Amino acid sequence: MNVFRRGMASASSLRQAGKVVCIGRNYADHITELNSARPKQPFFFLKPTSSILLPGAGPVIRPRGINLHYEVELALIIGKQVKDLQADDEQGAMDAIESYALSIDMTARNTQNEAKKKGLPWSIAKGFDTFLPMSNIIPKSAIPNPHSIELYLTVDNEVRQSDSTELMLFQIPRMLSDISKVMSLEKGDIILTGTPKGVGPVVPGDVMRAGIKVDGKELEEGKIEVN
Amino acid sequence: MNVFRRGMASASSLRQAGKVVCIGRNYADHITELNSARPKQPFFFLKPTSSILLPGAGPVIRPRGINLHYEVELALIIGKQVKDLQADDEQGAMDAIESYALSIDMTARNTQNEAKKKGLPWSIAKGFDTFLPMSNIIPKSAIPNPHSIELYLTVDNEVRQSDSTELMLFQIPRMLSDISKVMSLEKGDIILTGTPKGVGPVVPGDVMRAGIKVDGKELEEGKIEVN
Ligand SMILES: [Mg+2]
Ligand SMILES: [Mg+2]
Ligand SMILES: [Mg+2]
Repeated sequence: MNVFRRGMASASSLRQAGKVVCIGRNYADHITELNSARPKQPFFFLKPTSSILLPGAGPVIRPRGINLHYEVELALIIGKQVKDLQADDEQGAMDAIESYALSIDMTARNTQNEAKKKGLPWSIAKGFDTFLPMSNIIPKSAIPNPHSIELYLTVDNEVRQSDSTELMLFQIPRMLSDISKVMSLEKGDIILTGTPKGVGPVVPGDVMRAGIKVDGKELEEGKIEVN
Repeated sequence: MNVFRRGMASASSLRQAGKVVCIGRNYADHITELNSARPKQPFFFLKPTSSILLPGAGPVIRPRGINLHYEVELALIIGKQVKDLQADDEQGAMDAIESYALSIDMTARNTQNEAKKKGLPWSIAKGFDTFLPMSNIIPKSAIPNPHSIELYLTVDNEVRQSDSTELMLFQIPRMLSDISKVMSLEKGDIILTGTPKGVGPVVPGDVMRAGIKVDGKELEEGKIEVN
């Protein structure tokens, strides 16, 4: 019980993040399923911190008329200022990470598709309140290699997403390099690293469960269960 | 000197904003000059708080290969939580405003145009460090009617933008309503209300000066001078 409370307290600090930066199209099979173009370099967008849904803080709200999709993603919590990181600076990238979390990048897919067609920003499609369910904070030591863990997501106990982070097109050093050449990263910032294949719709009442496995073993802190 | 220091201290709190939400295409003549479609409803995007450039904090950095455009905009500083505001709730909208500032929504125009063509997010085009020069904080009482003030911007002392906020397509209650139905606004959040016609490029060395006039009288706190 004490452990649980400590986890909760620490997760609530996520709402104080300066920004949430999300990588798009970072797994080849997910690009194919959305009929998207494969990016030549990482691209990214922002979610507002007001969209963060802490563990146990209630259901994801589906706005009327919205086709709501889940995207399970590994989140990095940044531990210090990072600016102009070089893409080959693997040590610098790993040093910039303070801890991890699991996250679901909820997306208003119909709104996003319309925005894409019209050349409009994605902020509305990605930014509704509750559109970023997160797990408790995962200590850095629990994930020795972030490029070799399993992410999964189930809807009503059916597996929808389950893939290894090995499949990322752009790995973490390249991501942090490209982002930090545009916007300085600051302590507490959150980076979502992209979603594997299997994204799809959820409707009210559906129970999403998501988690992380390291060497086949589930991480307790990385679990999300949300309606 | 004391007044100046108080102004600076107070402006530095802007960097603690939870989010910066920006309205696009909110003045008809600016829509025409960019060959954009007139929106049926306000749309908006996020700039990262790391892009805020405080008064006196140095030049705007132009990334290599970027066609850098200025857009002068009235900024609202939010004073309390706002969620699902009704569009006709003018009193509620005015009550939500704690103070004002002037801002320049610096934009990587070529990057933005490419993003529009490809249906990609605007976050990179809008989000580089230093892409949001802001003035000191303007007390609410100094702007009795935010829909009837003059915004101007000069480059090397040539007037490039100079228009009244009367020309906004969507006024503040409608903006805050549409935004707060998507994302809750929180104390300290910053809203950029769109730019009048006259946007254009700046190159290193150009001096931008911007300001606000109320009844023809310049507001000291609303001045921006930046390279
Ligand atoms: Mg995603
Ligand atoms: Mg603008
Ligand atoms: Mg010049």
